[in-house]
Amino acid sequence: MRKGIFITIEGGEGAGKSTLIEQLSNMMLQRGKLVITTREPGGIPIAEQIRSVILDRSHVTMDARTEALLYAAARRQHLVEKVVPALEQGHFVICDRFVDSSLAYQGYARGLGMDEVWAINRFAIQDVMPDLTIYMDVSPEVGLTRIAQAKEREVNRLDLEQHSFHEKVREGYMQLLKRHPDRMVLVNAEQSPEMVFHDVLAVIDSRFAGFFATDVKQ
Amino acid sequence: MRKGIFITIEGGEGAGKSTLIEQLSNMMLQRGKLVITTREPGGIPIAEQIRSVILDRSHVTMDARTEALLYAAARRQHLVEKVVPALEQGHFVICDRFVDSSLAYQGYARGLGMDEVWAINRFAIQDVMPDLTIYMDVSPEVGLTRIAQAKEREVNRLDLEQHSFHEKVREGYMQLLKRHPDRMVLVNAEQSPEMVFHDVLAVIDSRFAGFFATDVKQ
Repeated sequence: MRKGIFITIEGGEGAGKSTLIEQLSNMMLQRGKLVITTREPGGIPIAEQIRSVILDRSHVTMDARTEALLYAAARRQHLVEKVVPALEQGHFVICDRFVDSSLAYQGYARGLGMDEVWAINRFAIQDVMPDLTIYMDVSPEVGLTRIAQAKEREVNRLDLEQHSFHEKVREGYMQLLKRHPDRMVLVNAEQSPEMVFHDVLAVIDSRFAGFFATDVKQ
Repeated sequence: MRKGIFITIEGGEGAGKSTLIEQLSNMMLQRGKLVITTREPGGIPIAEQIRSVILDRSHVTMDARTEALLYAAARRQHLVEKVVPALEQGHFVICDRFVDSSLAYQGYARGLGMDEVWAINRFAIQDVMPDLTIYMDVSPEVGLTRIAQAKEREVNRLDLEQHSFHEKVREGYMQLLKRHPDRMVLVNAEQSPEMVFHDVLAVIDSRFAGFFATDVKQ
């Protein structure tokens, strides 16, 4: 039984997902909510091990379908071992990337086809979908410039992709927003972190008023 | 363009797959054929790394769907990096386990459903199916006793399964034999290695007479 709220944060490189997630997490704690933040691929030992296979820069021969299957495998394990138990306990679960990343990156940008990639992900997630997905929209120019300036993490295999790849990823997300207008919300992530957080909070408060109201009464 | 022959060897634990593959490989070399022997999961660095995630005995929380996706990922990479290039070059490719293992082990024995597991494997292998699949049939009693006596390799996570699991794997293979009577052949693997090899060779020589005849003329 799912008592919690499942929110996923999506976006291209340098969209500011980590900053937003930290802001959201702090806000939830201030409101006295049980919150966990996690990420894909990874979040638990088995999935982190799969993540290291995916992102290893020496794996230049990695096939796009292999990559998509590995993401789905990591997603499955992370879901059953961490996300679902937390939702059952009533947590507010914030996840950095989920199935939409596979659809935008592998399905659309790498050209495997969104329906094909959805087929393996349906096997992985069965019926566990997010209550809300925030898509943080930045142009590749802005996103990649932020990453180059920040250097807060090591460059991985995906950062080395061509500019046109990141442009296609963005197009893929736009397709998904059209397909899932109820679940997905676009936020302009070229704004300041404060404004992004403000916009996201407005969406969350309007969507999950009941969740917060119930909590106040406890 | 596929000029070679793709043969897969299937069977439960202790069926004698390794011995048969060595015999077949030697025979092909004697006949002057290009032959490669390989195995799943593994056979190339990326797939071997995935294999180590799957078989790690500390991964007690591994979900059956995660496992099935990891096998499919390793299969995909092994196929595009090793099997397909060898087939294009005219090799006789002998592979220890392929898609039928996933269908029998995860689809049937673990109860995920053969059709569900086939869906993710169709994504992985597209249209590359074996020309012939040898199913080496042994009862779990015989197979597991052989493994216990031989101790030629370390016990892995799958060896630790209950006896009933191995019985179900065998039932899964029987279902596959019924579904694919043209591609799959059952061989009694409780016979001596010499008799098993004799039976398998008879099948191969009758099926691929053209492949060998062409070679003699070269």
